[in-house]
Amino acid sequence: MTNPKQLSDYLAQGDQRSLARCITLVENGSKEAFDLLSIVQPNPNIPVIGITGPPGAGKSTLVNSIIYHLSQSKPNIRIAVLAVDPTSPFTSGSLLGDRLRMTGHFNNPNVFIRSLATRGHLGGLSGRTLEVVDLLKSAPYDIIFVETVGVGQSEVEIAALADLTVVVLVPEAGDEIQTIKSGIMEIADLFVINKSDRDGADTLVANLKQTLSEKMGAGSVDIPVLKTSAQEGKGIIELSNHLFTHHNSSPIKRKRMLINKGIRIAQDLLMRRMDQDDFSNKLELESQKPGFNIYKFVEGYFRP
Amino acid sequence: MTNPKQLSDYLAQGDQRSLARCITLVENGSKEAFDLLSIVQPNPNIPVIGITGPPGAGKSTLVNSIIYHLSQSKPNIRIAVLAVDPTSPFTSGSLLGDRLRMTGHFNNPNVFIRSLATRGHLGGLSGRTLEVVDLLKSAPYDIIFVETVGVGQSEVEIAALADLTVVVLVPEAGDEIQTIKSGIMEIADLFVINKSDRDGADTLVANLKQTLSEKMGAGSVDIPVLKTSAQEGKGIIELSNHLFTHHNSSPIKRKRMLINKGIRIAQDLLMRRMDQDDFSNKLELESQKPGFNIYKFVEGYFRP
Repeated sequence: MTNPKQLSDYLAQGDQRSLARCITLVENGSKEAFDLLSIVQPNPNIPVIGITGPPGAGKSTLVNSIIYHLSQSKPNIRIAVLAVDPTSPFTSGSLLGDRLRMTGHFNNPNVFIRSLATRGHLGGLSGRTLEVVDLLKSAPYDIIFVETVGVGQSEVEIAALADLTVVVLVPEAGDEIQTIKSGIMEIADLFVINKSDRDGADTLVANLKQTLSEKMGAGSVDIPVLKTSAQEGKGIIELSNHLFTHHNSSPIKRKRMLINKGIRIAQDLLMRRMDQDDFSNKLELESQKPGFNIYKFVEGYFRP
Repeated sequence: MTNPKQLSDYLAQGDQRSLARCITLVENGSKEAFDLLSIVQPNPNIPVIGITGPPGAGKSTLVNSIIYHLSQSKPNIRIAVLAVDPTSPFTSGSLLGDRLRMTGHFNNPNVFIRSLATRGHLGGLSGRTLEVVDLLKSAPYDIIFVETVGVGQSEVEIAALADLTVVVLVPEAGDEIQTIKSGIMEIADLFVINKSDRDGADTLVANLKQTLSEKMGAGSVDIPVLKTSAQEGKGIIELSNHLFTHHNSSPIKRKRMLINKGIRIAQDLLMRRMDQDDFSNKLELESQKPGFNIYKFVEGYFRP
């Protein structure tokens, strides 16, 4: 077994096989994974772009087109894509199809694509997405895409780790624009109307801008709405340029992201220690005693 | 301010005003709330019945009918209902309407009804539902209903705290039975087809039983499917009897519920301590130093 220091060194050299191994370690959540994460050096300035939206909006095709454009226009650019599937790719034909469509890049050594399953992390991102993003930032890639279908609360979690969150819609969404969850409105830094050669694209853009200006109120930052047609490559240059020039989060958002991450890591550590310390069995034994109070027990357990 | 010991005594005597005060304390998550929870004495044998299902299935009307029937047939029975709204009742007409329909019981001193908002606990139950249930078990009520609309992950969380989880469907759900989230299949201890005087009820029962037997496989416990028509009071006696006779969880489920609860309380304590200790600002300061690694920092922070 390679030790964490060696793995970390290979990672920093951009070795894809080591990266894949590191991700597997982190997904399994072992002690070794924590040791590894404690020594890697993620570059904090690498932009993380969240891509979310309803099923069928063409998110993967869009990411695919962006990769293609970036690889052409910026030789040697290193791009990573994390596709976070809310269900196993093996039970969902469309997601599997999306993944396959990306395989065009599999021969490009500068493009790294990985699916993360959400394994028991209900309705949300994979519990380890934050950590895997840190590995990619240590690899280091120049830009990282995290793509997830906007169901459950995954789109809220994506906003917590992305510097810029792109919400992808299709013209057909126009009819539902009034009922689009306000959650989506709040997380989007940018809207993309994909498949915009279809009817209704301009109406959707107009309605969306109207709704945004009503919800956001005067004085707030404008949220841009771009039109693309990923399949034909339309609008991809504008979108890619936007991603590279507008990904700087505000200091307030950066602080919030840092704190959230700290809390997540602390909770993870807590769980690991409780596990090592056989908390479950101690709690069960205690619960059978007369006068047992779970709040008192847990507080006593953690008293230094 | 009444001290925790006094409040706990009033609670044990069944005083509704003290109960309401205790719930407010717990919802606000103060230090005082933890002191209170550390001395109350929840009766572990009181059944907690989870009621979930899609919007419009008639969950509140059903609970209403059960309360009416129980109050009539078991004089002096004390019943508590927690209605956990995934949105504020003030933004959702139908939920508010449901609540109003329950007011018929407001004059019954043996029936306690309370709404909990989910305040920032996205897609799930209120973060404090577990604790509020402990207060109700200390009050003590004879049976506790926790009702929530089955969206996001609230139905999974309800199953984690209920001894018996009832999933309420309407005949119109028949067409979607193949696509009903398998999550719902896994949490249901009992299905109720409400509004069963409508077309399609028998077909739904048959399809549901078919689907259940396929998913569950041989040798597993049968999940009953009952028909009701809450508005006309049909099937309510059978349902109520079932709730009182089938709420005993298996030892395995009881242990799982206990451990989950312990973990939740530990996480809550962790958050409170980090808050008191100004974790956020320490982390932010540290993050500006060269060579900063968040995993190393958090681990050092919690090292005893």
